[in-house]
Amino acid sequence: MKIDPHTRSLCKNIETPFLLFDLDIVRENFISIKKRFPKSHIFYAVKANSHPRVLTLLDSMGSCFDIASKGELEKLISLGVSTSKISFGNTIKKNKDIQFAYKQGVKLFVADSSMEVSKIAEHAPGTKIFIRIEMDAGDSDWPLSHKFGTSKEIAVKLLIQAKKLGLIPYGVSFHVGSQCYNPKRWPVALEKCLYVFDKLKNENINLKMINLGGGFPIQHTKPIPTLDEITAEINQYLRNFDPVPQIFFEPGRSMVGNAGVMVSTIITERKYGRENWLFVDAGVFHGLMETIQDFRYELKTDRKSAHPVEYHLAGPSCDSLDIIYDNVILPKTLTQNDRLYFLNTGAYTIEYSSNFNGFEIPKIYFKDELTNKKKKKKK
Amino acid sequence: MKIDPHTRSLCKNIETPFLLFDLDIVRENFISIKKRFPKSHIFYAVKANSHPRVLTLLDSMGSCFDIASKGELEKLISLGVSTSKISFGNTIKKNKDIQFAYKQGVKLFVADSSMEVSKIAEHAPGTKIFIRIEMDAGDSDWPLSHKFGTSKEIAVKLLIQAKKLGLIPYGVSFHVGSQCYNPKRWPVALEKCLYVFDKLKNENINLKMINLGGGFPIQHTKPIPTLDEITAEINQYLRNFDPVPQIFFEPGRSMVGNAGVMVSTIITERKYGRENWLFVDAGVFHGLMETIQDFRYELKTDRKSAHPVEYHLAGPSCDSLDIIYDNVILPKTLTQNDRLYFLNTGAYTIEYSSNFNGFEIPKIYFKDELTNKKKKKKK
Repeated sequence: MKIDPHTRSLCKNIETPFLLFDLDIVRENFISIKKRFPKSHIFYAVKANSHPRVLTLLDSMGSCFDIASKGELEKLISLGVSTSKISFGNTIKKNKDIQFAYKQGVKLFVADSSMEVSKIAEHAPGTKIFIRIEMDAGDSDWPLSHKFGTSKEIAVKLLIQAKKLGLIPYGVSFHVGSQCYNPKRWPVALEKCLYVFDKLKNENINLKMINLGGGFPIQHTKPIPTLDEITAEINQYLRNFDPVPQIFFEPGRSMVGNAGVMVSTIITERKYGRENWLFVDAGVFHGLMETIQDFRYELKTDRKSAHPVEYHLAGPSCDSLDIIYDNVILPKTLTQNDRLYFLNTGAYTIEYSSNFNGFEIPKIYFKDELTNKKKKKKK
Repeated sequence: MKIDPHTRSLCKNIETPFLLFDLDIVRENFISIKKRFPKSHIFYAVKANSHPRVLTLLDSMGSCFDIASKGELEKLISLGVSTSKISFGNTIKKNKDIQFAYKQGVKLFVADSSMEVSKIAEHAPGTKIFIRIEMDAGDSDWPLSHKFGTSKEIAVKLLIQAKKLGLIPYGVSFHVGSQCYNPKRWPVALEKCLYVFDKLKNENINLKMINLGGGFPIQHTKPIPTLDEITAEINQYLRNFDPVPQIFFEPGRSMVGNAGVMVSTIITERKYGRENWLFVDAGVFHGLMETIQDFRYELKTDRKSAHPVEYHLAGPSCDSLDIIYDNVILPKTLTQNDRLYFLNTGAYTIEYSSNFNGFEIPKIYFKDELTNKKKKKKK
């Protein structure tokens, strides 16, 4: 979302910090992926932004959902989402949560270990299972490796185990890492998938599906490949499969990231020796958790940046970990009560937030609601 | 709190993860500090654990309170705590929150910058102010430097500024860092305080108070100095002041840390090549945030540790950052549904927790309530 005079004026009287959010952009993002992969199923990663309006919109557009927990499942059910559209995509699941999901009608589960395969077979008998293959951490901002996934060789064994236990060995999944910069990572992962497909054919197991996870990057401060470039790489490699399998995606950041702007206010400035500090009311524990791995968002202010200065930028809590960036260039004229906008922060911001230090979790305001309110006022 | 057959049996049927908490230990901790510093005022750092029962107990024992935000202030007021016992101890405060606190009767504020001094003078006129002096990060597990505090020279200037603006220049504060291992850090800090006291005497400003912050360590996996050793260092240095100033403390971890045990359950185990993984239902975003800086808690299980093995220990969320420890020694016999206890986790655990991935924030269960429940059942 752009910060222009219209969006500035829409939210100028709202107390910060908050996330300004545009559902139209989510709509565009969904269409954009669907257009490139018309036969694919999109399982939105609920953990990226679980606001009911986001989930309801995506449900109405035909999206499926990737869940991490019973809590996310209950939320979707409460919104009327059909459980046939839900994939339990966490490799770490309690038995009772597998049971609960199964009873509610979830029929698709992931695993990356023998124990998890056995648990699913026991508590969700006869359902479809896919195995997550590991990818190393290369070329992404928020690697999802190490903790998750298994080798292609073990994936073969786990799918054979699944069949023996009465499950339907359905496919494989991978995740190139959140915010992945290199389109060549997808064919690297798909090559591992092909290995598993081929090996299992020899066992008379015909896998049907590849879940390509998430990882489509959104624009922050570094150049990113286009979705078309990534699409080309994926489609080219998929030609090696016969038949071409069903394709699932689990976009999170790429579905909602660019639909939101975290709006904060400068509380205090401090000059200390050569250091310039700015303290704002959003912070590591209140909307900006990803910055602890130096995840760089684009920043905007209402000032002209004629005299850029290097700042330390920190959040409002009494915690030294709550430093957003230790070096960031911003206009010298910035001072208390000025607003600071963190662009493309619609994903993984509110979700990570806590009440630490007694601060409230940033609220979400929707652009359409604010626009309607303004129109009503004018009448 | 010890994990013994009694505590195990008290909570064996409660769904994990949760914090088992013993208020009697908080009572002992308060008395322990008060006994060593009878004339001191203890300002409990609410941010460490803001459960109403903790706050009410400490209020009844005569504790004062150090707050970080309007939210913490409102909570204390709702519990009937007198605002005369409250210090607004965050160096980063919104004008409207200063105003709110002032109107509610808070008369003690901290600052470490010229802007913050001016803001307090404008929005809380005539109140007492103290200046936070910086300490470097040495010898503590969770340094509270860099972001907070100013030099002793600037502290002098800020207190002169405060007087000119009609505030009462009341004293100085410092924080040696949370979980500080070196008793010699306190005299190092007090020497800086003495400098400020002496310089201001020349300006006819007689400071009255030193706020020694927190930092008293609690027992985890490393050896710690005793409170008596730290007390001796503090008292010895205080003899250099004439008259000896009023002493404030802001204990957080040392007041509640050893009163709690985070109880978790193993969800899944995974052997992967040479790696042994255990996944539990508490994690970085659900109770164990401090472990991202490799803060090492002592662990207990219900198994005998005859065959210790090195594990990767991770939380339940779909996030690679949610790895608790990448190498931890635990019994080889551990398996799913076994409990894993994180000792001395009464501070900075629940407070950092979020609903990330749709998981609930761990609840707190109090030992006295569980004991009474058990007694009633027997009757």
